[in-house]
Amino acid sequence: MEGNNKQVIFKGYIDGIPKETDMEVKVAGSSRTAKERPKGALLVKNLYLSCDPYMRGRMRQFHDSYIPPFVPGSVIEGFGVSRVVHSDNPNFKTGDIVTGMTGWEEYSLIQEPQRLRKIQQDDDIPHSYYVGLLGMPGFTAYAGFYEVCAPNKGDCVFVSAASGAVGQLVGQLAKLHGCYVVGSAGTDQKVELVKNKFGFDEAFNYKEEPDLDAALKRYFPQGIDIYFDNVGGAMLDAALGNMRVHGRIAICGMVSEQNLFKPQGIHNLFHLISKRVTMRGFLQSDYLHLFPRFLEDVISYYKQGKIVYIEDMSQGLESAPAALAGLYSGKNVGKQVVCVACD
Amino acid sequence: MEGNNKQVIFKGYIDGIPKETDMEVKVAGSSRTAKERPKGALLVKNLYLSCDPYMRGRMRQFHDSYIPPFVPGSVIEGFGVSRVVHSDNPNFKTGDIVTGMTGWEEYSLIQEPQRLRKIQQDDDIPHSYYVGLLGMPGFTAYAGFYEVCAPNKGDCVFVSAASGAVGQLVGQLAKLHGCYVVGSAGTDQKVELVKNKFGFDEAFNYKEEPDLDAALKRYFPQGIDIYFDNVGGAMLDAALGNMRVHGRIAICGMVSEQNLFKPQGIHNLFHLISKRVTMRGFLQSDYLHLFPRFLEDVISYYKQGKIVYIEDMSQGLESAPAALAGLYSGKNVGKQVVCVACD
Repeated sequence: MEGNNKQVIFKGYIDGIPKETDMEVKVAGSSRTAKERPKGALLVKNLYLSCDPYMRGRMRQFHDSYIPPFVPGSVIEGFGVSRVVHSDNPNFKTGDIVTGMTGWEEYSLIQEPQRLRKIQQDDDIPHSYYVGLLGMPGFTAYAGFYEVCAPNKGDCVFVSAASGAVGQLVGQLAKLHGCYVVGSAGTDQKVELVKNKFGFDEAFNYKEEPDLDAALKRYFPQGIDIYFDNVGGAMLDAALGNMRVHGRIAICGMVSEQNLFKPQGIHNLFHLISKRVTMRGFLQSDYLHLFPRFLEDVISYYKQGKIVYIEDMSQGLESAPAALAGLYSGKNVGKQVVCVACD
Repeated sequence: MEGNNKQVIFKGYIDGIPKETDMEVKVAGSSRTAKERPKGALLVKNLYLSCDPYMRGRMRQFHDSYIPPFVPGSVIEGFGVSRVVHSDNPNFKTGDIVTGMTGWEEYSLIQEPQRLRKIQQDDDIPHSYYVGLLGMPGFTAYAGFYEVCAPNKGDCVFVSAASGAVGQLVGQLAKLHGCYVVGSAGTDQKVELVKNKFGFDEAFNYKEEPDLDAALKRYFPQGIDIYFDNVGGAMLDAALGNMRVHGRIAICGMVSEQNLFKPQGIHNLFHLISKRVTMRGFLQSDYLHLFPRFLEDVISYYKQGKIVYIEDMSQGLESAPAALAGLYSGKNVGKQVVCVACD
C-alpha cells in the first residue's frame, strides 16, 4: 500500500468555472515509508471524496478568502472519508474510519490528525454520508436553517439548488419545522426528486421559467419569509423582490457566480429597506459548537425515516475531475461524491 | 388665517430623481371654516417642513412600499413642526407645538391628530430639530446604530453621506461609543464639517476618489466592522469588499439609487459569505418603542455639548421644491429644512 499512489493534481489557477482539464490524474512514487512520516501523523486510505462548490474558490488566485487557494502542481484537497492504515497517534488505530480534510489521492499522509473526526460505525449509515448528510454540507444546512434563518412554524421558505447537497436537507428540515417549502432546480428530474422524494410542497425548473420574478410570485403569492440562497445571481435578485416584511436571506453558495472577478450585478437590494430584510452570509465553521447536536438530530431523523438523502456517486479516482467540474453545470443529481475504494 | 393657503402641489409621477419642476406652488382658497372641520381634527400653522430622501419613493408610481405614493394634484406630505391654531381635540390646545406628518402648505387640517406628538418647548432646543436631530432622521441614526449595527467599543465604523441628516448623528454616536469613525461626503466643505465639526476621525470626498476600494483600504487597512450605508450603489459595493469578519451593514438610504427601476448593480455580495457579514435593511418605524429613550439620550448629549447638529435652512414655502430636489444632488449641507414661518 505504500508503493505507487494515484493522485489528482491541480494544474494551475483559473478564472472561470473549473473544467475537467484543470486537473490531471498522475501516479506518484510514494515517499511514505515509515521513516519519513512525521511523528503523530496518520497514513490513511481514502474511501470517499467530496465534491463541493466552495472548491472553485480554492482554484482561483484569490488569497483574501476564509481558506487559502490550492497550490499549482499539488494534490487537490477536500473533505473525505478514509480508513486509517497506519497510526503513530494514540487517538487513532488501524481500521478506524475518519473524516475531515484529505488529499484527492489513494493514500494520504495526515499531518494534523487532530483535525480529523472518528466516525462511529453504524451499519445503517453509509460511510459516504459523512461528507454529505452528516458532514459539512448537512451541517451547513442545519446551522444555516436554524441559526441564520431563524425559522418559525408556518414560514414560507424558498430553497434554490434544492436537490443539491445542502438544499435537500434544508427543505426537509423546514418541512419538519412546519414550514411551507418550495425549491428550485435545473432539470425536471431534479424537480421530481425535490417534490416526491424530499417532500417539498412545490418545486420548479428555473431553466424553464422565462421570468423568475413571476415564478416566485406564483409559488409565494404572500411573499417569502426565508430564502436559503445556494446560487446568488438572478435567482437572488428575483427573491429580493419577493421577500416579506422582516424576511431573512441566508447566503450560502452563489454557485451561479461563475466568475468572482466579474460577478453578475444584483439590482434589487433596495427591497431590503422597505421589507426590513436581513441578509446574512455564513460559514458552517462558525457554528461548530452545534455539531454534536446536529449529528444527534440528523442521525435520529434519518433512522426514523423522517429524512432521506440522495448522493450522486462517481466511481474511481479517475472520475474525480469530471465529477467536480460537473457541479458547476448542475450535472450531479444529489450530493456529488467520488468513491475511491469501498473499504 | 383661514383665507388663502399657499401649497406645494405634486404634479405627477416621475421615473428619475425629483426636480423642482415636478412640484408647483399654488394658492388655494381655503375651505377650512370651522363648520367643515371633521370632529377632533386640528388646524395647524406649519412652521418647519422636512426634506427627506425617502420622499422620492412617494413620487413614483410604486405601490409595494412601506408608504403609499403621493396623489398627483395633491399637496406634498412630509414631516413637519407646526403650531396648533385651532383644536377641537382635548389632547391639544391652541399654541401647542406639534410634530408629525403634515402638508407642504401654510396651514394644514390634521385629520388624525393622534399621530402627532406634542413637543416639550425648551429654549435651548430649536423647534426645527424635531424634524432632524430629534425627529425621524435622528431616530433613524439612533435605532440603526444601536439596534442594527450592534456596535462594540473599538469597532471601525464607516458612514456614507456623513454630513447628512442621519450620517452626522451616526458618526457622533459612534465616537461616543468608543469607535474609530470615518465618513464620506461629496464636497470638501462637507468633509471639513465631518472632521472638524462632527469630530469623525477621518473623512474623504468620494467624488475625488478615482477608486473607492482603494480609498476604503487607505482608511480601513484592517477592514470595516460596521458600515452605515446611506447611499447604496458603488459605495456599498466598495464597502462590501472591505468588510471584516462578522461585519454588519445597516442599509438605510440608497440615495444614489437614482432610479428604482434600473438601480445600479451590486457585484461584491460574495464577500458576505467569506466574511460572514450581516446586511440588514431597516426602518426607524420598527423601533418606536425606543423613541422615548432616544429623545432622553440625545437631548442630554446635546445639552452637554457632546453632539452638535447642522441644518440647511431654506426660507419660505416657495423654496421647498428646490430644497427637496437639491437633496438628490447633494446641494444641502446638513439636514435640509424649509422654514415656512418662524412662529
